[in-house]
Amino acid sequence: MSAGRLIGVGVGPGDPELLTLKAMRALGEADVVAHFAKAGHASHSRAIVERHLRAGVAELPLYYPVTTELPKCSAGYRDAIGGFYDGAAAAIAAELDAGRVVAVICEGDPLFYGSYMHLHARLAPRFPTEIVAGVTGMSGCWSAAGMPIAQGDDVFSVLPATLPEAELARRLAEADAAVVMKVGRHLAKLRRALATSGRLARAVYVERGTMAAEKMIPLAAKLGDEAPYFAVVLVPGWDGRPGEKQ
Amino acid sequence: MSAGRLIGVGVGPGDPELLTLKAMRALGEADVVAHFAKAGHASHSRAIVERHLRAGVAELPLYYPVTTELPKCSAGYRDAIGGFYDGAAAAIAAELDAGRVVAVICEGDPLFYGSYMHLHARLAPRFPTEIVAGVTGMSGCWSAAGMPIAQGDDVFSVLPATLPEAELARRLAEADAAVVMKVGRHLAKLRRALATSGRLARAVYVERGTMAAEKMIPLAAKLGDEAPYFAVVLVPGWDGRPGEKQ
Repeated sequence: MSAGRLIGVGVGPGDPELLTLKAMRALGEADVVAHFAKAGHASHSRAIVERHLRAGVAELPLYYPVTTELPKCSAGYRDAIGGFYDGAAAAIAAELDAGRVVAVICEGDPLFYGSYMHLHARLAPRFPTEIVAGVTGMSGCWSAAGMPIAQGDDVFSVLPATLPEAELARRLAEADAAVVMKVGRHLAKLRRALATSGRLARAVYVERGTMAAEKMIPLAAKLGDEAPYFAVVLVPGWDGRPGEKQ
Repeated sequence: MSAGRLIGVGVGPGDPELLTLKAMRALGEADVVAHFAKAGHASHSRAIVERHLRAGVAELPLYYPVTTELPKCSAGYRDAIGGFYDGAAAAIAAELDAGRVVAVICEGDPLFYGSYMHLHARLAPRFPTEIVAGVTGMSGCWSAAGMPIAQGDDVFSVLPATLPEAELARRLAEADAAVVMKVGRHLAKLRRALATSGRLARAVYVERGTMAAEKMIPLAAKLGDEAPYFAVVLVPGWDGRPGEKQ
């Protein structure tokens, strides 16, 4: 019996119409569809593709361990999450060893800041593996905002809001265009870093880009510093530069 | 008569299967499909969607002016290219004024380093406009390479190879992960900057990611410094860091 095949399938930022034809084909070929979810929650990636799942296809939900009681940098958290990925990879390997095609569906693009990469690192050396690129969450956000983000020789950076304030400010000032991710409880600090770097006036806050509950507003006009973990802030390059020839 | 509607349609990095369902719908709705091409050449974006064009749909090719005799930073080039975009926008505006739906098809994502942005800046303030996000060229490249590019709190940067060598080296050293674009005649300089920044060993050279003539090789193993304009170099973050817990 031949080994199965692993497919990391990007399903885009949330709008089910942003699924690619290649992702559709992968869903049609898969014997097993695997998806990550928080324990006790429905999988976001599954919701995106729900209407395209084959009737009766096997599903393999991969529930993140509940580790909110552990700080992310702790050894305990690392062991828990590492053990979780080991177990998830073993469950998928069992399907692949049985000759099945396993599609792991991933929000956005599989190899750009996604959990799938932890499975890929464990399984791609052992099994035939294919990646179906997807529309990233950040593309979904700037498209929903109708905001050109970078052009020509712009330097574009993706920055986590978890960086220290001074480093955020320095990196924002050095980039022509930027997307700040994981805004969550870092919004007050991010506002200060944007002000320091002269980028606050053109920053746009986006929640749930391309999804039904999408919300976007110039950051300077947003009241309060409450933000969900997955909110992003867009700092356009080219379009925001006064005097730039368009 | 109501005004028409402009749709900026991302058609992905080259593989026709990386078209989204939403892009397919836009092609089905469009009265006119507009596409950029070099004078005397077929449009790349048109080739990607060719099999999905409605029979008899009107096409509006937008041919870049031949300006290779002018340096890019010259006032002459800027005037020629600015005049070209003015004319292209006027041609599209005439269709929109006549109540038609115009889809401008764009390689990759419309608002990420694309020519469409020049039309968007001119037309979006005047006409109903929609953006269909697309899979970027860089996603196509790292997916084709099966290379996880960035994870967790990585800082990710897109850098043009046109930057001066010292600046390239500094920015490469400061980013966890990077994509260097527009490699073309800058490959020798880029190699030196990668070596200076300690990134050469993990750099991967990619030509025509996701296309039929796709070519990828560790940069250190690539002989010679010849490269086409659209070649990119990928510098993975997370996956390339020794000792990182996976």
